[in-house]
This record gives sequence, C-alpha cells and structure tokens, in this order.
Amino acid sequence: MKPGIWSLLLLLAVRPGAAEPSPGVPAPSNVPGAQYPRLDSEGRGTFRIEAPLAQSVAVQLPQGRYDMTKDAAGVWSVTTPPIEPGFHYYTISLDGVAVNDPGSRTFYGTGKDASGIDVPEPGVDFYTIQDVPHGDLRSKRYFSDVTKTWRRLFVYAPPGYDADTDERYPVLYLQHGGGEDETGWADQGRTDVILDNLIAAGRARSMLVVIANGNLPREPGVTGIYSRAGMTGFTRELLENIVPFIEANYRTHSDAKHRALAGLSMGGGQSFFVGLANTEKFSAVGAFSTGLFGGIRPPGGGEPTAFDAEAAVPGLLTEPRRFNDALDLFYLSVGEQDPRLEATRNVVADFRARGLEVEFASFPGGHEWQVWRKSLHDFVPRLFR
Amino acid sequence: MKPGIWSLLLLLAVRPGAAEPSPGVPAPSNVPGAQYPRLDSEGRGTFRIEAPLAQSVAVQLPQGRYDMTKDAAGVWSVTTPPIEPGFHYYTISLDGVAVNDPGSRTFYGTGKDASGIDVPEPGVDFYTIQDVPHGDLRSKRYFSDVTKTWRRLFVYAPPGYDADTDERYPVLYLQHGGGEDETGWADQGRTDVILDNLIAAGRARSMLVVIANGNLPREPGVTGIYSRAGMTGFTRELLENIVPFIEANYRTHSDAKHRALAGLSMGGGQSFFVGLANTEKFSAVGAFSTGLFGGIRPPGGGEPTAFDAEAAVPGLLTEPRRFNDALDLFYLSVGEQDPRLEATRNVVADFRARGLEVEFASFPGGHEWQVWRKSLHDFVPRLFR
Repeated sequence: MKPGIWSLLLLLAVRPGAAEPSPGVPAPSNVPGAQYPRLDSEGRGTFRIEAPLAQSVAVQLPQGRYDMTKDAAGVWSVTTPPIEPGFHYYTISLDGVAVNDPGSRTFYGTGKDASGIDVPEPGVDFYTIQDVPHGDLRSKRYFSDVTKTWRRLFVYAPPGYDADTDERYPVLYLQHGGGEDETGWADQGRTDVILDNLIAAGRARSMLVVIANGNLPREPGVTGIYSRAGMTGFTRELLENIVPFIEANYRTHSDAKHRALAGLSMGGGQSFFVGLANTEKFSAVGAFSTGLFGGIRPPGGGEPTAFDAEAAVPGLLTEPRRFNDALDLFYLSVGEQDPRLEATRNVVADFRARGLEVEFASFPGGHEWQVWRKSLHDFVPRLFR
Repeated sequence: MKPGIWSLLLLLAVRPGAAEPSPGVPAPSNVPGAQYPRLDSEGRGTFRIEAPLAQSVAVQLPQGRYDMTKDAAGVWSVTTPPIEPGFHYYTISLDGVAVNDPGSRTFYGTGKDASGIDVPEPGVDFYTIQDVPHGDLRSKRYFSDVTKTWRRLFVYAPPGYDADTDERYPVLYLQHGGGEDETGWADQGRTDVILDNLIAAGRARSMLVVIANGNLPREPGVTGIYSRAGMTGFTRELLENIVPFIEANYRTHSDAKHRALAGLSMGGGQSFFVGLANTEKFSAVGAFSTGLFGGIRPPGGGEPTAFDAEAAVPGLLTEPRRFNDALDLFYLSVGEQDPRLEATRNVVADFRARGLEVEFASFPGGHEWQVWRKSLHDFVPRLFR
C-alpha cells in the first residue's frame, strides 16, 4: 500500500465532526476503544451511529426513546437526559429495526445478545473491582437428565478455595430472570466482585455461588412458569441434577442449613416456589423483584391472577411457624420504581400479619440490574449465620 | 389484557410466510429459540431479518456478500451457497450499516461483539462435547503492572485438578488474534472441549491452559506489533505478570520444560517473538497463521516488509542448533486458503534448509477458527512428551 493511500485513509478517519468527541467518557460497558456511547458526570448518554442512508434512527432505553439527528457526514447522534444509574439493555432503532450498538458490548438478555449500558452510580463501589483477594468464576459442563443435553453452569469459588483444601463451604444457588441465562449473574450481576468485596470486608461468609441456566422445558400445555406445573422442569433440574452435581464436585456442606436459593424476577418466582416447597433442602430463600405477587402480566402469557400464597405453597399462610422454624432467612426485595412494588409490599404486610417472618428491602430503580446487584449485596451478608 | 388482544398478537406472530421455516436446522451458534440463521445438510445458510423500511439488505460472510430479497411482509431473506465448515464472523448489511443478526449469538472479534455462524464439518467431532470427564474454565482477575488495571484471564483446569491436589501440571499459554480477546479461545476456539476430548482419549497430557488478553499498549510511536518494539507490552505482561501469577495460584511445574507458548495470527506473532527469544522460559512454541512471514499487510498499519528471521530472533538462522537443543517443539501452521500460506511454506523450507527443526501443518480453510481449532488439536498432543 502506497503512503498516499495511507494519508487518504487517515483523512477519512478524521473527517470533520468526528474529531471532537462529545463531553464525558466512554461507558464502562463499551467494547475496548469505542468512544460511543459516552456518559457525562450527570449520567447523560451520547449515542452515535453512522448510517448515511437511514431515514430515522433512535436509541431505545428502558426510560424512553430518543430520536437521533443526522449530520452532513451521515452520522446520527443524540444526547439523552440523565440515565438512571446501573445496567440497562438498549437497542438502536434503525429505520424501525432494533439493532445492537456496535460500540457496546453485548449481554444475553431480552432473549438475545443485546447492547447494554452500565451507568456508574456516584458513591457506590460495592460492585467495583477492588484490591482485595479475588475468587474465581468456573464454567463447568454437566449433563442434564431433564433436557438430555450438556448444559453450562458457573460456580463462584471464594478466595482460598484452592489453597485450603480441607475447608467445606455453604452454597447459594442463584437464578437469573426471564430472557436471560447463566451469564446474567456472572456478567451483568457482577456476582464475583460483589462476593469478593463482601468477604474481604468480613461482611459475608466464604461461600460457593452456583449460577445455573434456569430456562427449562415446561409440562405440555403449561404456558407460564408461575405455577407448580410450570416449575417442574426447573425443580427436577435443580434438585436432581444441579445440587447433586455440585455436591459431588465441590467441597460443600451438604445440608439444608448450608444451602440457600435466590433469584431475580423469573428466578425469584422459581426460588419462591422451589425453596419454600423444599425447606428440608434449603434454609434460606430470596426472591428479588418477582412478578408472582401481581402488578404485571406473568411471563409466558396468561392473565394476571390474584396471588394465592396458600395455593402456591400449602401451609405458608396457615402454618407460618413451620416455615419460620425451617428457614433461617426468607427475603423479598423489589425496585421502588418497579410496577411490582405495591403488590410485593402488600404480600409482605399480609405475610407478617399472619405471623410469617419475612425480611423485606426495596431499592431505587425499576425492574433492572442495579436493584438486583443491591439485593444480592444486601442478601448475602444475612446468609449462613 | 383481553383475550381478543391475545388472538390479534397470535395472528401477527404467525403471519403468512413466517409459518413454514426454510429447510435445515437453526445454526448451533444461534441464541436459544432463534429459527434463523438455518443450515441445511450441505451447509447452505438461510438468513432472515424483518426490516420493512430498508432499501437494501445483504449478509456479509468471509466468503462473500449475498443480497437478500424482501417479501410482502417486509421480511428479507437469502439462502447462500454452501458455507465453509467452521466458525465465521459475519454481519447483516442494513442499508449499508453493518449490524448484528439478532438470531445469532455474539462473539468478540473484528474489534466488536460480532455475529458468528458455526457450520458443522461432517465427520469432525473433536470439538464436540462428548460423554468424557470435563475440566473447567476459570475466569480469574489479576492486576497488571503494565496497564495498571485489573485484567481477566481464563485458566482451563483439566479433569481431576480439584481431586488430585498433590498433582502438578504443565502449562500452555495460548493467545488470541487481532481484534479478539481472551474470550476467543474460550468460546470460538472451544479449547476446553478440545482438551477434554484429547485427554480422555489418552492423546494429550493433562495440562493447564492459560488464555489471557494479549491486547497491550505499545511503545510510543510504534504502530505495528510485529517487531520487538511492538512486543514489549505483551512480553512484560506475560513474563512479569501472567506467568508469575499462574505459578503462584495454580499447581504448576514451573520450569521451561513444562511451559509452552502458542497463539493464532497476532498471537502467533507474539508467540514466535516472545517464545523464541525466551527459550530459557519456554520449551515449546507454536504459531498458527501468523502474518509475520509476509503475504499480508501487518495489523496495526505499516508496509509489509520482507521477513528477516535473524533480525526478529538473533541466532535463529545462524545458530539453529541452539534452538533445536532448547526447544522440544517448534510448530507452525496455516490455512490452505490463507494468503499467508506461501510465505509460511517458504519460511519453513528456509528454516529446514538451515538446519532449524520445525514442525509444519496446514489445514483446509482461510484465516479462520476452523484452522485454529485443528491447529490446537494437532499441537497439544505433541506437548510435554
């Protein structure tokens, strides 16, 4: 290639308009080197994509849709109002087609590998990598009797797991939401960083965290997962495949006292049903932002129905003491801007009125990962005490 | 939501044309549930995207560009000629904008999270998950003195690593190509599956494989990596950060006899330079599809220059016996349709004529992952014998 061609390419690369980036810095969720999207100190996002032939381009965030405008070079951009702190899936709408932003990393959510933007929250560093001992996250394959396929799960092993080979650990089983998979808690959720920081601060016990794929077949004719029939695949996978596999391959304490089950949204529903129905196997149950209690249409279709706790978990309302005795922790949480908030608060009040012990926390935010990171961070220190 | 609205949504979902899928099956690299892209038994790919407002849509594969045609419902599709077996990055060109295919998983390559299609190769199952003992792939954070940031690497631990805690293992350090990162060998490369299968068949020794991020800063003013100056960041990272970290945290045999270094493309150049210049630290060096020897423009810019092996690694041509004595294995490979083929063959012939021992293998395919999977599968059984 002749030097003259190089100059031309260089000239094209620094065409007018591209030379001066907008205020702010590249989002931490960008692919390496990508200058856009950018975030300023107030959380305003500037999004940008080159599409000279497009007729209309917009960025679709959970909080709203922002039309982009085109410059003379065919580059579309927009600066949004401040974006809520935390992690958000988003798309670029390119003449009506929802596409990924090439500047963003992708994250499996909304049923595809989607763009995501992680907006730092001032003063919050519990999910930031710190100079503390780090565990690791182990990707492991196991054979499922339910799906008859090899599946993947992640195991967080705390610092020291490989060094202290006589030590055994309690286990938290942690489930993702609908449209997500085992990568959710590993990636968007920053589980390993949250646990590393809590353990280093002496705020949580050293534990294993098992992050499995909760997408499992339903019984024929069952459309939603929010029923006992909808849970049978997950129940079998967890109790007959995952727990025995973990206890055979990792140094665990293998009793109910040392097993916890929690999840977000769909995984919160799974944890509620399976954890409460199996208190001889789990002593702690957490459900973050589950839609089980109402306020939204159930995932998988069907009409929202009034939540009947006693039908869901026989004895829950009529024999609360049985659950109080069996469980060391029953924990619910929800985002303060989540449409599930009121229903969750009502259920908590009802449970408490009937004598069922339940911890409850809410955090600023909608049906989103910042609430779930904070829920995990709040939940884990209460475990295995 | 009223039942009437449900019927309407159902009707929209099964609009004419969408009901009967094209021949073949969903590609194994699709997101769960995505019916497109599909592959038939000959490897023909059918790609499909809904974009009613677009003027022109095409799929861009390494082997060529295929224009899609629009049906009355605004759905674009095309069936391509047979696609070469193996893994290929690709894009959908939507009115000239290169976007991801929402049906495909994404893979970090070409400098972004890109769509990829994995076309099975008839009769080839060395990278298919089999019913054999499985190791795991551990994601681990370490602090880099070079970048002054926390970085991630993966460690493949072979079956039995956690059970036989007296056993120590040799280590292969394995580097990705340009525009990729540590996820390349973990994901596209299927390293854990290839190792599991080789070890189970008794064809490879149990070993650790360390897969690190080879993207590191260059000295000021150095534009390409294919020089000793371009390698300084990686050299420091590997020798001063990664190797000591691995040997402090995993049960390794910590001598040159039990260390190997290999990589693909850019990582092949890194392995060639750093491995051959440090034979007191590595006894095996592999370079798959490196552009170092000519045939292509160097990544990072600059003119292609004639390869001067003696300048790159002093003594390589003038004191071949020194390298023959120090190395148990020096291995080069390349794809038979890769433009690097001829230059690599010439270098091998030149090395051999001067008495330098080098193993050489070529595989059908271009500058692509199928060649690198086969290279790894061919290279690993020769290690640590």
